[in-house]
Amino acid sequence: MARIAIDHIAIVVSDMEAALGFWQGALGLELQRIESIAAEEVEVAFLETDNAHIELLLPTGDDSGIARYLASKGGGMHHICLAVADIEAAMQRLDDAGIELINERPRQREDGTRYAFVHPKSSGGVLVELYQKT
Amino acid sequence: MARIAIDHIAIVVSDMEAALGFWQGALGLELQRIESIAAEEVEVAFLETDNAHIELLLPTGDDSGIARYLASKGGGMHHICLAVADIEAAMQRLDDAGIELINERPRQREDGTRYAFVHPKSSGGVLVELYQKT
Repeated sequence: MARIAIDHIAIVVSDMEAALGFWQGALGLELQRIESIAAEEVEVAFLETDNAHIELLLPTGDDSGIARYLASKGGGMHHICLAVADIEAAMQRLDDAGIELINERPRQREDGTRYAFVHPKSSGGVLVELYQKT
Repeated sequence: MARIAIDHIAIVVSDMEAALGFWQGALGLELQRIESIAAEEVEVAFLETDNAHIELLLPTGDDSGIARYLASKGGGMHHICLAVADIEAAMQRLDDAGIELINERPRQREDGTRYAFVHPKSSGGVLVELYQKT
């Protein structure tokens, strides 16, 4: 079996202070950091549980994918990120099974991690990110 | 900080065979078991990742909460279940913070585990289950 773990669950929020009041204040999760990603017009709060992260995504512009998601669906769960040992192998396996990927090849973040998204129409409406740490 | 881990992510599906084709067949997650819960009119497939479970929920009647969710929103992520060490303490902490709970007291499953749901209006639209193993 493939080695796959849940890396994080991403949640779109309309009010970061209220969201942190729930996840950090009331539930007691540890806030690791808050990061503004200008290119994606989003502010991300990274919270830790014992085995995986929760990311709160607040759109900072009106034109991002996250802003459109919030406008059409309201706040809620946005995607699941699965950490895989070998992202090319995982993507090949999905492709072989006829699963449509949003990214044909892994994209790379500044810290060197690579990622790709599965199209929700191939996964029953769930946006799934695959992720390989450096 | 409270000790909290992600126990599982629950996903509502309209077609169990297609969903297993993705999660088990294409991604390679291990299928632990499939269980029919007559009282809740739902069939549940339990899949394992290295650190948490994924539960696929298929409604088996037209009148369950899961059936109504599927009819109104389509398939997708339904709730996050967080394992806590002390469910009464976690619920008290949420109550003290003004968070609305769907269940005022923990409910108990046949295997003895106890659980309660947070109302999505108190958590930015995310249905959160708290869960304490026996």
